[in-house]
Amino acid sequence: MARTLTRTRIRQYSADGVRQREDVLAAEEPLEIRVGGVAMAVTMRTPGHDIELVHGFLHAEGVIRSADDVAVARYCESVDAEGRNTYNVLDVRLSGGAQLAPERVRTVLGTSACGVCGTAAIEAVGRRSHYPLAPGPQLTAATVMALPDALRVLQPQFSRTGGLHGCGLARPDGTIEFAREDIGRHNAMDKVIGAMLLGGRLPLTDSVLVTSSRASFELVQKATLAGCAVLVAVSAPSSLAVELARSADLTLVAFTRSHSFNIYSAAHRIAD
Amino acid sequence: MARTLTRTRIRQYSADGVRQREDVLAAEEPLEIRVGGVAMAVTMRTPGHDIELVHGFLHAEGVIRSADDVAVARYCESVDAEGRNTYNVLDVRLSGGAQLAPERVRTVLGTSACGVCGTAAIEAVGRRSHYPLAPGPQLTAATVMALPDALRVLQPQFSRTGGLHGCGLARPDGTIEFAREDIGRHNAMDKVIGAMLLGGRLPLTDSVLVTSSRASFELVQKATLAGCAVLVAVSAPSSLAVELARSADLTLVAFTRSHSFNIYSAAHRIAD
Repeated sequence: MARTLTRTRIRQYSADGVRQREDVLAAEEPLEIRVGGVAMAVTMRTPGHDIELVHGFLHAEGVIRSADDVAVARYCESVDAEGRNTYNVLDVRLSGGAQLAPERVRTVLGTSACGVCGTAAIEAVGRRSHYPLAPGPQLTAATVMALPDALRVLQPQFSRTGGLHGCGLARPDGTIEFAREDIGRHNAMDKVIGAMLLGGRLPLTDSVLVTSSRASFELVQKATLAGCAVLVAVSAPSSLAVELARSADLTLVAFTRSHSFNIYSAAHRIAD
Repeated sequence: MARTLTRTRIRQYSADGVRQREDVLAAEEPLEIRVGGVAMAVTMRTPGHDIELVHGFLHAEGVIRSADDVAVARYCESVDAEGRNTYNVLDVRLSGGAQLAPERVRTVLGTSACGVCGTAAIEAVGRRSHYPLAPGPQLTAATVMALPDALRVLQPQFSRTGGLHGCGLARPDGTIEFAREDIGRHNAMDKVIGAMLLGGRLPLTDSVLVTSSRASFELVQKATLAGCAVLVAVSAPSSLAVELARSADLTLVAFTRSHSFNIYSAAHRIAD
């Protein structure tokens, strides 16, 4: 996978005047995820670590629980107009020939019931959760505040493009042991959780997930379903992210800076 | 719609110590978009201006071209567990009783063809484009550099939450005449374009779209389909966004700061 970055010529205006220069861009390509040959979703992602991505995605969607649920995951022979494989279609065959339940296809498109609301979305996560989050890890405030910088060191492509999100898996002492980058924050987290699933590391009982982005409902959902009790975000959380975090007893930290941060739920895991 | 913001108690760590305080959150709720009673998509959005949002969304999806194509757009009587309307399900009846073509439902899930790739995605936009982008507006470099600050003034909810993206429609002289905020950058642009469609203002021949976010493929796609020839983004563009912009002859400006910016395509619309 050599397509994480692409180079291009641009025109740059600055105080020094106008000049042509080369710029490095974060790659964005569609990935179609199929289960047993049936298209389930298309995500715009940065190519690379696609196998991890689909495992993480299918785990969050409740289609698989462990690596044993997947018989084989491979690229289809999808070709572009010039006959080259695009490596943009991945098919997952489930173990024992299991098929995707029709309602699973629907869940990607959305809920079918009238009454779609935050409460229903939170209840749906609750029904799919297999792992208790308690007690979870204990962190010091100093460790929390050091996490964004520790993650940034493991975001080499962000440094070059400014266009990629990072997600890291940290130990309670703040060491980041694994990290992935992607143009989509949800993809970056899917790659991290997918890699852990492939390594037999779920649930993420004593780990911390760190994201360079805002904390959306979707990220809290993925962390919860992976059994991770602490999510640290650099930017703002949404209302529904906070509601779900409180409902699931996940510790949600956001606006994390080198000298400050906010705790929105389950503050007992962070020591002053 | 009083749900754009919500308030909550948080625990804040800073150099001054630990304190409890009230925090304002950007609201995030699912919106199910139905056409003729059939669920087409669910988007996580900030409630408010939902009618604009669905018009902009359906325009970008190629389902409608003008306000005349919609007979009625209204909230379903969807209720939550307490029997209150969620205002999270919007049904659009097309004029003349037109139904959503089955392949339209598919396009939201993704392309059905093998060979999904950036080239195919760009060709799909080309097939759906109704408006030529040329010649488009002319802007000075000074005008470009002033746009992010001009938009920020019209992002009151961002100032309070840090969690909302903004999208603005600007005249070539830099005046922002319309702006919307949403937790999703694509929703903010759908709201702006939807409002213009409702006002009979498409194509956006001599306007500039400004986004507080990065420039993804999806945003360039929406701007192109609305006939807007210039998109100015505060943060980084993706590879596929640049490819589409070049293919469509849209001027894509990104990393826009008060003293500098980069032009990735169709630079002839920006005067030194």
